[in-house]
Amino acid sequence: MGIVVQKYGGSSVADADSIKRVARRIVETKKAGNNVVVVVSAMGDTTDELIDLANEVSPLPPARELDMLLTAGERISMAVLAMAIQNLGHEARSFTGSQAGVITDAEHGRAKIIDVTPGRIQAAIDQGAIAIVAGFQGVSQTTKDITTLGRGGSDTTAVALAVALEADVCEIYSDVDGIFTADPRIEPRARKIPRISYEETLEMAAQGAKILHLRCVEYARRYGMAIHVRSSFSEKEGTWVVKASDVVPDASDETGGSTTEGQTMEAAIITGVAHDRSQAKITVVGVPDKPGEAAAIFRAIAEAQINIDMIVQNVSAAATSLTDVSFTLPRGEGQTAMTALSRLQDSIGFESLQYDDSVGKVSIVGAGMSTSPGISARFFEALSDAGVNIEMISTSEIRVSVVVAETQVQDAVRAAHEAFDLGSDEVEAVVYGGTGR
Amino acid sequence: MGIVVQKYGGSSVADADSIKRVARRIVETKKAGNNVVVVVSAMGDTTDELIDLANEVSPLPPARELDMLLTAGERISMAVLAMAIQNLGHEARSFTGSQAGVITDAEHGRAKIIDVTPGRIQAAIDQGAIAIVAGFQGVSQTTKDITTLGRGGSDTTAVALAVALEADVCEIYSDVDGIFTADPRIEPRARKIPRISYEETLEMAAQGAKILHLRCVEYARRYGMAIHVRSSFSEKEGTWVVKASDVVPDASDETGGSTTEGQTMEAAIITGVAHDRSQAKITVVGVPDKPGEAAAIFRAIAEAQINIDMIVQNVSAAATSLTDVSFTLPRGEGQTAMTALSRLQDSIGFESLQYDDSVGKVSIVGAGMSTSPGISARFFEALSDAGVNIEMISTSEIRVSVVVAETQVQDAVRAAHEAFDLGSDEVEAVVYGGTGR
Repeated sequence: MGIVVQKYGGSSVADADSIKRVARRIVETKKAGNNVVVVVSAMGDTTDELIDLANEVSPLPPARELDMLLTAGERISMAVLAMAIQNLGHEARSFTGSQAGVITDAEHGRAKIIDVTPGRIQAAIDQGAIAIVAGFQGVSQTTKDITTLGRGGSDTTAVALAVALEADVCEIYSDVDGIFTADPRIEPRARKIPRISYEETLEMAAQGAKILHLRCVEYARRYGMAIHVRSSFSEKEGTWVVKASDVVPDASDETGGSTTEGQTMEAAIITGVAHDRSQAKITVVGVPDKPGEAAAIFRAIAEAQINIDMIVQNVSAAATSLTDVSFTLPRGEGQTAMTALSRLQDSIGFESLQYDDSVGKVSIVGAGMSTSPGISARFFEALSDAGVNIEMISTSEIRVSVVVAETQVQDAVRAAHEAFDLGSDEVEAVVYGGTGR
Repeated sequence: MGIVVQKYGGSSVADADSIKRVARRIVETKKAGNNVVVVVSAMGDTTDELIDLANEVSPLPPARELDMLLTAGERISMAVLAMAIQNLGHEARSFTGSQAGVITDAEHGRAKIIDVTPGRIQAAIDQGAIAIVAGFQGVSQTTKDITTLGRGGSDTTAVALAVALEADVCEIYSDVDGIFTADPRIEPRARKIPRISYEETLEMAAQGAKILHLRCVEYARRYGMAIHVRSSFSEKEGTWVVKASDVVPDASDETGGSTTEGQTMEAAIITGVAHDRSQAKITVVGVPDKPGEAAAIFRAIAEAQINIDMIVQNVSAAATSLTDVSFTLPRGEGQTAMTALSRLQDSIGFESLQYDDSVGKVSIVGAGMSTSPGISARFFEALSDAGVNIEMISTSEIRVSVVVAETQVQDAVRAAHEAFDLGSDEVEAVVYGGTGR
């Protein structure tokens, strides 16, 4: 009997009714002849509430204790889910990350998985039980203290367990039907992607698509574990994230509408359009154009622990030998970066700083891009035709990203989606969480 | 450096402010030159809220999962308390029951402690840290599943840890100043008892005094661990629960008022007056007075899992050869007992059943009683003088209990307190939780 690992996020287990619904779904999977291991996040807003409580007693809660506190969240959801399943007449047992054998390093709040030794999980499913595992948490190999995995931790727990248990598939449930060619809230003609490679998913995630966390996709890619991204509110097939060689254009794909062969080939070049409205842009104006200046700027940014994304340096104006350097970064870190740079104004000798947090990033992603010339040109032409001004450009093997005004993000996404013929002829129904969210 | 184990109940850690107050108290104990190990209950109503959540998904939540769920409560309180202590500049580390080495049997919901192996706690205090331990929970020796200890579990955790760590004392904090000669809400002249034996404390607890759980006192008695019962809302000395041989009448006791030697000797005979309003009385009327009838009645009660307390059987009336059997039991179990007995009416052949839940039990407890004749007589005379009618009587080596009408409980307590000269001349201030409760 094969093993299916399922992961349900906080919005899928937000309250008792949601938990009962998820329990029924799990029991159906079990009845269909699978061994089932479930990874679950904390219920709804539990984690935020626990953080608020911590902040009431300590402005900077110690990381070890914060991990101890936050792991209570999954402890609650997993136990209640196990109860709901047992109430349907099926044996279910909950396990903490530690009990499930999720061994991590000792970096509280952002621990990395070192090993997974799921002996108790294997024993539970061998005895016919459904195993429920707390996501997001583990136990330190060295200190034996409880750790949390940080952002994307529950998805990563699920993939890591699936790998360790040699599961057939790791199903990641959320309130969205799968990975789409663009955000359906922006482009109603966006189409669900039936199959996508790890690499394209990584680029989509890095460029702002909010379906899967980079970290869990990286883990799955390393071990070749298939991920099935789907909605806990619908029975539909979602999106399979698999090896690039397994992403074959398939006539039976539920892409909807009638496509000629030419269109199918073309659609395969670009997989989707991602956008990201969480970034800001800083421009350092009037930097002396000599060796070491850019290094000094980005050393200051790195020392402030700020992650930057795109960087553009203009050609210097010959008359002045001064250049402008622009980069993007998360908006929440904008103030810190501006402060760090201001301190260096005299030593670097730049003229001024400009901060713009009304920008957005739009990216086209596709494995076929690297062998198809003219992709960038078609993208830029489409933006131009839509009246969208490009502020910055950055590219990778399978991606082209542009920074535009935030007000033009929607037009840019639609233009790109249209230019690469990604849409279906009909608007697909997208099931969101609705009131349950 | 000696070790002090402190236990704080749910009302002492009901919210962030309470936790900060308790943190300051713990730090003071540490600064006074002690190694400190703290056992903590779940915050305020957390446990009840978790039980409500469980009942939303399952009418009868499986015990293993209920334990997993409920242990989240102490996980939250202990982590937040550790944060609050660290915020005061002292190292503190929280540990689950499992991490603290509280090894139990596998009886979920009412597990018994088999062993305590507090290696990690010892290591933490050896390194100068304050150790915070989750009360009420442990880990099964056989199944490795998380267990809870049931009623009185946190007090018992504290005593068991104190024993295993060879602590100097186990301090049990609540919102009451200590153990009193009677409930101060009923008898304002009640006096705090400075020292009391384990045996007297057990009788007081069994007879309704709500300070310490039987189980924790039994554990302390077995290993001779001194318990100091005191208030987390005051700095006063509380009540020391110790070996009978260590309960010496001490002229320096803070009993208040001027006492002659005679009064002191007298007061030593009776330690206190306990009362209990949680009981009901069932009378089986007209039972044939032949062998096996009483056995049949109490077998039926036992099979219904009901704990009975006092039993009285009247002498049969010669004319009818019928007798009446009365017993007391917790009110919550009254309906079950009446149903179980009604089913047997034909086979036993009794005439009728009477149920009375407006009764109360009043007990006098004192180690000196067994060697002092006339105690019962003085007790009954005092009740008679106060116009209190006695419905049932039961005695032990160090206790005399009577069942009276609930409306007469207060009069009975005051009469007994007066008869044995237990009061102080002044009303002692009793600090209750106040608004924090």
